[in-house]
Amino acid sequence: MSDTHSLDALVQALRRLPGVGVRSAQRMAFHLLQHDREGALQLARALDAATSRMRHCARCHTFTEQEICATCADPRRDASQLAVVETPADQAALERTAAFNGLYFVLMGRLSPLDGIGPSQIGLQKLLERATDGTVREVILATNFTAEGEATAHVIGQALRAQGLAVTRLARGVPAGSELEYVDLGTIAHALADRR
Amino acid sequence: MSDTHSLDALVQALRRLPGVGVRSAQRMAFHLLQHDREGALQLARALDAATSRMRHCARCHTFTEQEICATCADPRRDASQLAVVETPADQAALERTAAFNGLYFVLMGRLSPLDGIGPSQIGLQKLLERATDGTVREVILATNFTAEGEATAHVIGQALRAQGLAVTRLARGVPAGSELEYVDLGTIAHALADRR
Ligand SMILES: [Zn+2]
Ligand SMILES: [Zn+2]
Repeated sequence: MSDTHSLDALVQALRRLPGVGVRSAQRMAFHLLQHDREGALQLARALDAATSRMRHCARCHTFTEQEICATCADPRRDASQLAVVETPADQAALERTAAFNGLYFVLMGRLSPLDGIGPSQIGLQKLLERATDGTVREVILATNFTAEGEATAHVIGQALRAQGLAVTRLARGVPAGSELEYVDLGTIAHALADRR
Repeated sequence: MSDTHSLDALVQALRRLPGVGVRSAQRMAFHLLQHDREGALQLARALDAATSRMRHCARCHTFTEQEICATCADPRRDASQLAVVETPADQAALERTAAFNGLYFVLMGRLSPLDGIGPSQIGLQKLLERATDGTVREVILATNFTAEGEATAHVIGQALRAQGLAVTRLARGVPAGSELEYVDLGTIAHALADRR
């Protein structure tokens, strides 16, 4: 066995992080061992704690340490509106606007047939059950405006409308504060088509 | 306490990694919890093992699990030549060339007065003792060709020469395979000055 086995194993483990190649992993391992061993131990404990404690909310699928997440359990939220988002980060972005007081369903991904992510991987059946609880009046599709996000919104929208639910989509358009000269053509074309 | 305390703590811990901002840390935490819990536990174990097992070689300062690293302990290496490098990654780069069969001294950093990294942080006194063991005949300064690496080479070179040691520096010049048209002016100027 090499005299740097545990260092090599650390570099390999760091490479499993998204966006981390071999050079970044080596730089991270060097930094932790040379300058921040306390940080390395803190990260090890945080990984253990998060993997053992975090689970999925029984109602919206987001990460929580409880059976039901804080948002779903909040009686001040408007249970008649349900926003469908891809990830907890997208939910946090909507929350920061303070413009939505309904509840959420977090897909924890997006449809991506090439990666083997189909309707069951994003919990479509659970979403249908959640949205047809008799209280939800409107489902707002807030998936990303990427090709996969749009395809996901399309498939989910069809399934929800087939249940007789009112389904809306976040508006596409020119970002606030933009000068038209610097906005891409597709965005302007969508803003024209969706003008009001 | 929030219902996502352990997730928030994981994001904070990941941010201590070099080059990882809050968005990257959130993406990493999401990936590990949603898609790779096994990877999260593997990383936690690797961090524990590396921090407890890796220490510094008593002769060259690089990371090793032994008292003396495998390179320093290798009797086939030429002990009369000592290359001074900044990091284990730089040492590995030299090793990949297979053009050097001497030994190393790894500074584990570079002089950086603004960051409080002075001669004692890079082990200058240890290097002087190491280089004056009576066996070393030539010290090759192989620090990086950055401003800090050059300054480090300058300071170390002066201290070593004051001990009567033969000190050389890696040659500066045009990278192999380059077209002059695309090489920066400073590199060409150095290649002219160091022409042979
Ligand atoms: Zn929830
Ligand atoms: Zn050594």
